[in-house]
Amino acid sequence: MKLHHHTLHSNHRHFGWTRDLAPALTLAPGDTVEIDIVDGGGGQITPRSTRDDIARLDYSKLLPLFGPIAVDGAKPGDALKITILGFTPSGWGWSGVIPGFGILEEEFKDPELAIWRYDPSGKVPALFGSHARVPLKPFPGTIGLAPDEPGTVTALPPRRVGGNLDTRDIAEGTVLHLPVEVAGGLLSVGDTHAAQGDGELAGSAIESPMKIALKVELEREARIPGPWFDTAGPATRHLDAAGYHVAIGLGQELMEAARNAVRNMIDLLCRLHKLAPVEAYMLCSVCGDLRISQLVNKPTWSVSLYFPRVVFE
Amino acid sequence: MKLHHHTLHSNHRHFGWTRDLAPALTLAPGDTVEIDIVDGGGGQITPRSTRDDIARLDYSKLLPLFGPIAVDGAKPGDALKITILGFTPSGWGWSGVIPGFGILEEEFKDPELAIWRYDPSGKVPALFGSHARVPLKPFPGTIGLAPDEPGTVTALPPRRVGGNLDTRDIAEGTVLHLPVEVAGGLLSVGDTHAAQGDGELAGSAIESPMKIALKVELEREARIPGPWFDTAGPATRHLDAAGYHVAIGLGQELMEAARNAVRNMIDLLCRLHKLAPVEAYMLCSVCGDLRISQLVNKPTWSVSLYFPRVVFE
Repeated sequence: MKLHHHTLHSNHRHFGWTRDLAPALTLAPGDTVEIDIVDGGGGQITPRSTRDDIARLDYSKLLPLFGPIAVDGAKPGDALKITILGFTPSGWGWSGVIPGFGILEEEFKDPELAIWRYDPSGKVPALFGSHARVPLKPFPGTIGLAPDEPGTVTALPPRRVGGNLDTRDIAEGTVLHLPVEVAGGLLSVGDTHAAQGDGELAGSAIESPMKIALKVELEREARIPGPWFDTAGPATRHLDAAGYHVAIGLGQELMEAARNAVRNMIDLLCRLHKLAPVEAYMLCSVCGDLRISQLVNKPTWSVSLYFPRVVFE
Repeated sequence: MKLHHHTLHSNHRHFGWTRDLAPALTLAPGDTVEIDIVDGGGGQITPRSTRDDIARLDYSKLLPLFGPIAVDGAKPGDALKITILGFTPSGWGWSGVIPGFGILEEEFKDPELAIWRYDPSGKVPALFGSHARVPLKPFPGTIGLAPDEPGTVTALPPRRVGGNLDTRDIAEGTVLHLPVEVAGGLLSVGDTHAAQGDGELAGSAIESPMKIALKVELEREARIPGPWFDTAGPATRHLDAAGYHVAIGLGQELMEAARNAVRNMIDLLCRLHKLAPVEAYMLCSVCGDLRISQLVNKPTWSVSLYFPRVVFE
């Protein structure tokens, strides 16, 4: 069996998920593909943009998907096994506070924008403001298959077949398994991020155009209940060398506990590192990790926000 | 100023939090103390117990607290700065499925018990069943101050002043800050764990008696909103060398997303490692980490359960 390497250009874009779209490309199981991806802003933000461009965003043009890619022979009940081979980052990205998004949307209502420029190797921490340096770890925020639903459904929420998972560790070397619901699977990818904290709490990561290379294999009759993956190795060594500041949030709902963790961390970062609250909020979104410390001590749960101290060292 | 080292024996125990209890010990700021702690089962489970002893647990005797320890001069608005100096673990512990507790309490209703024996250095992974080895990282599940509330309040939920935080990284070398609400602070500690995953999802960790050594300092007028801490260094290197299996759970509430992540991981561990579902559930509680991958992609959130592959290597 001869395996092929394919290229998918960024003109093969669509909005929303549908089982009805003809494939832009068909792979044999085991083939590889490189996809050229425009970031989740759909090109509306450029390196010269200002916060006024956030205010003017056309939400209907957010989250373009690149694909769909069919896999020969894939059918419902199978899984696609997708190995993330690597990235060719563009060297720039943006983070914003977008009205209506983010865990503290009621407290941070004004549009905000930060433009990042970074070494295109993706191996050098990116500067935020005058003294914060964020280690990078590129990944696709959106990777998924077409759901077996009529019509076209929005790309914002993730689904059983994947989609806008925004899961930070679907990074280089990770092997991701997604359940197939329609013939061919119909894989699309988008919303590439140069870095993101677990939670993506302010609603954006370092949104960054880049190319991604994937290997796609077929697992027949896998019958998996939802997406799962194996990381290639440790997941946080790019962040953890200097340890963490950790703020604990409590609440009788996990979302409220998470909100309190974010509020407490913003308070802490402003005290310790002289940030403005909106800077702390945006920085936590790209490199702070929300972990559930306990959800069993009735009736109050603990969510902790882990902020990597290496950012300020 | 001469600093002192104190010892608090395990007969200084109380149930629930109250500002009205006389201190068992008073420290000067900067003093150290070693506390001898009976595990969160309050001595009802022994190395010879069976699951029948879980069924017979007297819940009113769970979570004994050891203290209270007053700090000279501490007053409301201050914070206690507590450095976790180290542990003297006992070498045994237990994990259980306790009816009425755990994220899947409706699906795992029967009492279950596992007894662990481990190297008292705490540095050697502990065997679970025939082939799973869990790296240890001792910490106090409960560490807190007396709240400024009348009467006695239950020790189960954590509060702004700390308490049953069950936060895995309050481990050796961590520096924890807790807000003082009453004169002297009135620190108590309990519920020591030899290992726990983020979430403590089945409701128990490796519950294990041990001694803990602390240094207690006073931060005047710190006016912190809640507990926070700095880890001494990386938080997961005892677990992460071989990477993780990760199951993603989705839901329109974070708790439902977390439940789905746990269900999907149990399915996965049973397939990959031939565990019984209740074994997978208990194992996830002691070494699986619940992380919030995203909570901004309306209306569906992603919680991921990270299971360290080193456990099966």
